[in-house]
Amino acid sequence: MKDITRIESLADLDQYIAAQGYSQCLILVDSNTREHCLPALVGSSDALNRSEVIEVEPGESSKSAEIVAGIWNAMIDLHADRQTCLICLGGGMITDLGGFIASTFKRGIPYIYVPTTLLAMVDAAIGGKTGINIGHYKNQAGTFARPEAIVQDPSWLSSLPHRELRSGFAEMIKHGLVADSAHLNELLRIETVTVENTTSYIRRSAEIKEAIVAQDPHETGVRKVLNFGHTAGHAFEALSHALNAPLLHGEAIAIGMHLALGLSVKHSGLAEKTAIEVMNYLTKHFAIDFTALRKQYPTGDLWSFMLADKKNHRGEVRFVLLKSLGTPVIDCAISMADFDAIYQSAR
Amino acid sequence: MKDITRIESLADLDQYIAAQGYSQCLILVDSNTREHCLPALVGSSDALNRSEVIEVEPGESSKSAEIVAGIWNAMIDLHADRQTCLICLGGGMITDLGGFIASTFKRGIPYIYVPTTLLAMVDAAIGGKTGINIGHYKNQAGTFARPEAIVQDPSWLSSLPHRELRSGFAEMIKHGLVADSAHLNELLRIETVTVENTTSYIRRSAEIKEAIVAQDPHETGVRKVLNFGHTAGHAFEALSHALNAPLLHGEAIAIGMHLALGLSVKHSGLAEKTAIEVMNYLTKHFAIDFTALRKQYPTGDLWSFMLADKKNHRGEVRFVLLKSLGTPVIDCAISMADFDAIYQSAR
Repeated sequence: MKDITRIESLADLDQYIAAQGYSQCLILVDSNTREHCLPALVGSSDALNRSEVIEVEPGESSKSAEIVAGIWNAMIDLHADRQTCLICLGGGMITDLGGFIASTFKRGIPYIYVPTTLLAMVDAAIGGKTGINIGHYKNQAGTFARPEAIVQDPSWLSSLPHRELRSGFAEMIKHGLVADSAHLNELLRIETVTVENTTSYIRRSAEIKEAIVAQDPHETGVRKVLNFGHTAGHAFEALSHALNAPLLHGEAIAIGMHLALGLSVKHSGLAEKTAIEVMNYLTKHFAIDFTALRKQYPTGDLWSFMLADKKNHRGEVRFVLLKSLGTPVIDCAISMADFDAIYQSAR
Repeated sequence: MKDITRIESLADLDQYIAAQGYSQCLILVDSNTREHCLPALVGSSDALNRSEVIEVEPGESSKSAEIVAGIWNAMIDLHADRQTCLICLGGGMITDLGGFIASTFKRGIPYIYVPTTLLAMVDAAIGGKTGINIGHYKNQAGTFARPEAIVQDPSWLSSLPHRELRSGFAEMIKHGLVADSAHLNELLRIETVTVENTTSYIRRSAEIKEAIVAQDPHETGVRKVLNFGHTAGHAFEALSHALNAPLLHGEAIAIGMHLALGLSVKHSGLAEKTAIEVMNYLTKHFAIDFTALRKQYPTGDLWSFMLADKKNHRGEVRFVLLKSLGTPVIDCAISMADFDAIYQSAR
């Protein structure tokens, strides 16, 4: 795999771009990052100050084939060539979408991620996967591709709403659960997530993901552990959008991790006491109300989505479970009845 | 690069599929290959006889983002998973389109090319590039990706119209021009292209392309020689569709090669006598009428298309030219005036 350049500040990004000899830079934003983040980005850089800006609506609905086609067309109109660099300024939606567009436009042009959310910094911008949605099915189309550089500047986080910050925190907890119980225990000591008490853990959490990805860039084996909590989590997330009451990604993943911990006790030997401790933390911290969820999200609806998920085949639904904290087991086939039993008793 | 399995007959394809353990096969066809080729394919194979068929209209207009999105959706509805294999039965349009769809669906599922035209056998199905069009601009989006297997069965060619056969023959001539003057001289002895007098050269022509691609899978250097004739050729091809008088790919490339030979005499030292011999062959063999072309395709229109082509940057148009037969030079910057001078005098 090619190396990705780590850039620590916007001033360093300006120097990096000046050294690359790009024919031009284009900046992909959503209307939120255009308002809140773009001024700081273009203010820091002569090159970016002259760049054309491509804007999409915020939210998952922009990760569509139609939006991709529209932006490809816009790039042709802007005379983008193979030496054009696409700067992706935003959260995971923008990095997933921009990475897909850049990795397929003229069969791949350079692109740089400037993640502006905690979730994107510790997860979405790392790992060399791009993705768009097919209908309500998340990331069902995409590429394995890596940006030239990632800008990891925590100063963006201070303007982030608390729910967004907590959403990123869920993925940090996941990294601890599947690979580093010490990291997990540090995080579980945090009572309320703030920029101050998470910043120092960002680098470690990103490193855990990078190390797993480096072992398995094309997701054929060990990397599947990163899907812990995502099999059910994606189903909740997708259905929440269909219900017009969208859960943030990390909020859905927190629910999915809770259920995967329950399944782990039953099916992969995780100690019950350990599981309950983490499950209680998740329930409290993410204010999960399983009684309400069971009414809004019937098992059958969730199961239909899970069957269509790209990690499953031959009609089974396969979960990542845990043997113990930090020790995952991939490809655990679970039946709808098994899942329902855990879901009905969750609290 | 992973190896691509060569399959010589449909019977061998059936055995190959049976050994792979795919969850299912889906077959991508256009309405022509559905009628003329699908019966032989499914008749030869139990597995394929049960496969769902996805049909698109013939022609370049099917290589669009809208069609890609429609097929991705259909594949979700057909419960395609990561072990689903997409069989691409057709010419270069089907292999370019199907390869793009398969290499991006769930970030890449297995796919097999069954090329049914000479052009696809010697060119489109070889080389690990997929592509779709953005508006009238050909292959402006795509991936570098390779099929699991290619079926090279010349028995398909007997039902191919003569124009289609000749279109594929143009790419064989190109392989000779850029890499093997002995191959070229064998081909120039052919007065009228038939299945009989081309079949024995298919393997050599495909091998020339494979050898070039193997040196440069991501088209950063030497592989550009395969674009000989394509810079202007693509412009004629694209404009011919806009004019509703479509040229076949090889017909457009024959025009483009003629002009590139003329430019080579002026700009890269190709001997005039040698160039004229090949140019005369192309004019006669492909019935090129430059007087008519100059009326239908003004220089300015061609140049605008060439400027948008993915091989050009910073406003220049770069051609592959020849120093001598078999010895190409890449990245030759040509001005509109240089191009126009050659175009106006071509015959």
